[in-house]
Amino acid sequence: MINPKRLEKRIYTLADIGATKEGGVTRLALTKEYKEAINLITQWMEEAGMHVFLDAAGNLIGRKEGHKTKKPPIVLGSHIDSVKNGGKFDGVIGVIGGIEVVQHLTEEKFNLKRTIEVIAFCEEEGTRFLSGGMFGSRAMVGDIKNSEMEAKDKDGITREQGFKDFGLDPNNIKQAVRNKNAIEIYLEMHIEQGPVLTQKETPLGIVTGITGVSLMEIIVEGEQNHAGGTPMNARKDALLAASEIALTIEEIFNNYGGVSVGTITRMHAQPDQVNIIPGRATMTLDVRDIEIERRDKILKEIENRAENVGQERGVTFQFRPVLHAEPTMCAEEIISTMQTESKKMKLKYHNMPSGGGHDAQIISKIADIGMIFVRSKGGSHNPNEFASIKDITDGTKLLSATVLKYMK
Amino acid sequence: MINPKRLEKRIYTLADIGATKEGGVTRLALTKEYKEAINLITQWMEEAGMHVFLDAAGNLIGRKEGHKTKKPPIVLGSHIDSVKNGGKFDGVIGVIGGIEVVQHLTEEKFNLKRTIEVIAFCEEEGTRFLSGGMFGSRAMVGDIKNSEMEAKDKDGITREQGFKDFGLDPNNIKQAVRNKNAIEIYLEMHIEQGPVLTQKETPLGIVTGITGVSLMEIIVEGEQNHAGGTPMNARKDALLAASEIALTIEEIFNNYGGVSVGTITRMHAQPDQVNIIPGRATMTLDVRDIEIERRDKILKEIENRAENVGQERGVTFQFRPVLHAEPTMCAEEIISTMQTESKKMKLKYHNMPSGGGHDAQIISKIADIGMIFVRSKGGSHNPNEFASIKDITDGTKLLSATVLKYMK
Repeated sequence: MINPKRLEKRIYTLADIGATKEGGVTRLALTKEYKEAINLITQWMEEAGMHVFLDAAGNLIGRKEGHKTKKPPIVLGSHIDSVKNGGKFDGVIGVIGGIEVVQHLTEEKFNLKRTIEVIAFCEEEGTRFLSGGMFGSRAMVGDIKNSEMEAKDKDGITREQGFKDFGLDPNNIKQAVRNKNAIEIYLEMHIEQGPVLTQKETPLGIVTGITGVSLMEIIVEGEQNHAGGTPMNARKDALLAASEIALTIEEIFNNYGGVSVGTITRMHAQPDQVNIIPGRATMTLDVRDIEIERRDKILKEIENRAENVGQERGVTFQFRPVLHAEPTMCAEEIISTMQTESKKMKLKYHNMPSGGGHDAQIISKIADIGMIFVRSKGGSHNPNEFASIKDITDGTKLLSATVLKYMK
Repeated sequence: MINPKRLEKRIYTLADIGATKEGGVTRLALTKEYKEAINLITQWMEEAGMHVFLDAAGNLIGRKEGHKTKKPPIVLGSHIDSVKNGGKFDGVIGVIGGIEVVQHLTEEKFNLKRTIEVIAFCEEEGTRFLSGGMFGSRAMVGDIKNSEMEAKDKDGITREQGFKDFGLDPNNIKQAVRNKNAIEIYLEMHIEQGPVLTQKETPLGIVTGITGVSLMEIIVEGEQNHAGGTPMNARKDALLAASEIALTIEEIFNNYGGVSVGTITRMHAQPDQVNIIPGRATMTLDVRDIEIERRDKILKEIENRAENVGQERGVTFQFRPVLHAEPTMCAEEIISTMQTESKKMKLKYHNMPSGGGHDAQIISKIADIGMIFVRSKGGSHNPNEFASIKDITDGTKLLSATVLKYMK
C-alpha cells in the first residue's frame, strides 16, 4: 500500500534539514545540510529494499534489481537540493514518492521483472554554483563543460572544491554518463510550480511537455552622476531605463495572453550608493515558451522596444544570451498510460505543459520521459509552498500504477 | 601668487592614491589609502607654513597662527575621502585650494591677523561605514550617535575598529567638538556636482544655500514564485511594482520643472535568483529641495501614488524615513563679499543652490559659511569628472580674496 503517513513523516523530517525561520528550506547542493539529507534518503532507500550509491556526479541512486537484468531500468527521480529559502515540497516529493513506490512493491513482495532505480539528482536548482542548474542529470547525459567546475559559490568556493569537500573526485565525473536507452523510462513527480491546478481545483497534472527557457542578460549603460547636483533633464539614469524595459516586457507578455511568460528575475543597479544616480544596471530576463518561433519573435520585439527606450533616454541596451533550452515533449505512450491509469483510479487530472525546467527534460536525451504534477498552494521556490499529503498520495499512486504498466 | 602649476601637481599626485582602472579614485575613510593621502596632505600643509594635527574624530587640521590669537580662526576645508570609483576633484580641490591660499599668504609674508586653518574632514562621503556621511564635521559639532561607532563596512569591520586601526581612540571622539562661534567663518570650495555651470559656460558658482536631503527606504512586498510556472495574471511581482513607482517618481519630479530632484539610487530585488519572480524589493529614494514644504508635498504625492500602484498590483509599499536634512543657507555677508571680489577680479560667476550635501552645512551650526563652486565636466562621484586647472585657480583666487576680507 502507498502509505500516506510514511510519505508525510518523511517529507516533514527532511524539511527539518536546512529549515529557515520563514518555514522554508535552504539546502544547497554539496553543503553540510545536503550531506545530512543524503544520509537520511540513503537510510530510507535501504528500508525500501534498495542498495544505494552516490555516482561520480553526486547523484544519489537507490537500486532494486529485477529478474530481467539485461533490460534497462525504470527510473523514478527528482532532487532534494533547494533554492535559498525555498519550500518543503519542490523536488522532494519526486524522490520520497519514488522511494514509496519501491517500498510498496517490496512490502507487497511484488515479483519485480525490471530493475527499478530512484535517483536524487545533484544540484537541480543551480543555486549554489550558478551555472544553469540540473548539474547531476546533465552529467548523466554527458553535458558538462570543464569550465563549469570552475564556477564559484558566494564564498568563492569552486564546484571542483565543493566536489572534493563532499568526498567526490571531480576528475571522475564522466563515470556518471549513461548511454542512450540505458534507461527504459524516466518518471518524475513534482509539485506544479504555478497556480493552474489550484485554480482548476484539480489535484494532479499529466505533463505534456516542458517549455523552453531562454535566459538573457540585459546590460544598460547610462551615466553615473551626483543625485543632488544633476537636474532631472540632464540625467541618463540606467535604473530608470531598466525599469521602463521591465514594464515593457510585462506589457508584451500580457499581450500574448498567457501562452508564454517572461520575468526580470534579477536587477542590479550600480554603483548602488545612496547619493549617486545609477550609471549601469544589469538584469536577467527569463522567457518560457513551448514554441521556439514565438519565443524568438517575442525576444526580437523586446530588443526593438529596448532600442527605442535607449534612444529616448540616452542610454544603451545590450542583450547577451545566457541559455536557450529548447522545449521538450513527454512520451505520448507514457502520457496515454497515465491518463488511462488515472481514469481507472478515478483521479482527477489536467493535461498541461510544465513552465518550470526539470531533470526530466535533460534525461529525455537518453530516455522517454513522463511527469506528474501535484497541486501546490503558493507555487514553488517559496517557503510557504504547500501540497497536501492527500494529493501527494494520489500522485504517488499514479506513479506506482505507471511503473507497473512498464514492468514487463 | 596662487600657483596653478602647484595646484595641478598636487591634485594629480593625490589622485594616484587609490587610483582605479577607470581613471577614478577609490579612497575610503580610514583605509590604508586614506592614511597615505593624509600623510601627503600633512607634508603639503607643513610646506605651506602650518603645524598639523589629527583631531579625535580623524579630521586633519593644518593651522597657522595669526596675531589676534584670541579671535576665532578662519577655516577653509573640504574632504579627501572619495566614493567607490569616484573622481579626482570632489572634495580634493577644497583642501588643496585651502592649502594653496595659506601657502600664498606665507610666501607673500603676509602679516596674518587671524589664525587660519585648513581642514580635511574625515569621511564626508559616508561610503565606507554607511551611516549618513559627513562624519568628521558632525563630530566637530557634537552630532555623533554612539550607535554610529557600531556601523560596519562591507568586510564587517566596525567604525570603532576602523578608528583603532587608524591609531585613534574612539572613546575620545567628543574631544573634537568645537563650540558655537569657535570658528569665525567656514569657506569651502568644491566642484559643482551637476552640469549647470558647464551649461551656462561659467567657471564659478557662488552658493546661496545647500538643499535639504531626504532619504527614504521604500520596501515593496509582493509574492515570490516560480518564473516558469506562474501565469502573468497570477503574479505579485515586487520588482515590477518597484519599477513602476521609480518611473512615477521621475514623472512627479519632471512635473515640478527642475526646482527639486529625486532619484532611486539603490534597488535590490529578492531573492535575486535566475528563475524566481521577485517577492520583495527595497529601494532608496533621495529627494533634494531647498524648500521644506514643497519637499513634504512631493513625498506625500509619491506615497499616494505608491498606494495606487500597490492596490493595482496586489503588493504593499512601506516608506521608512532614513534621513531628513533641512536646507542650509550660506551667510548673506559672505555671499555678498564673494560677489564683490569676483567682480573686482572680473571672474564670471553664477549664484546657485547646491544640490549636493557638504561639510559646510554641518559647520553652519557653529559658524557662518560660504561656498564656491567650480565648473566640473561630468558632475561628481564620477571617475571622469573634470575641472580645469584654470577654473580651479580662479576659484582659489576668489577663496583667497574672501579670506583677506575677513583678516581684520
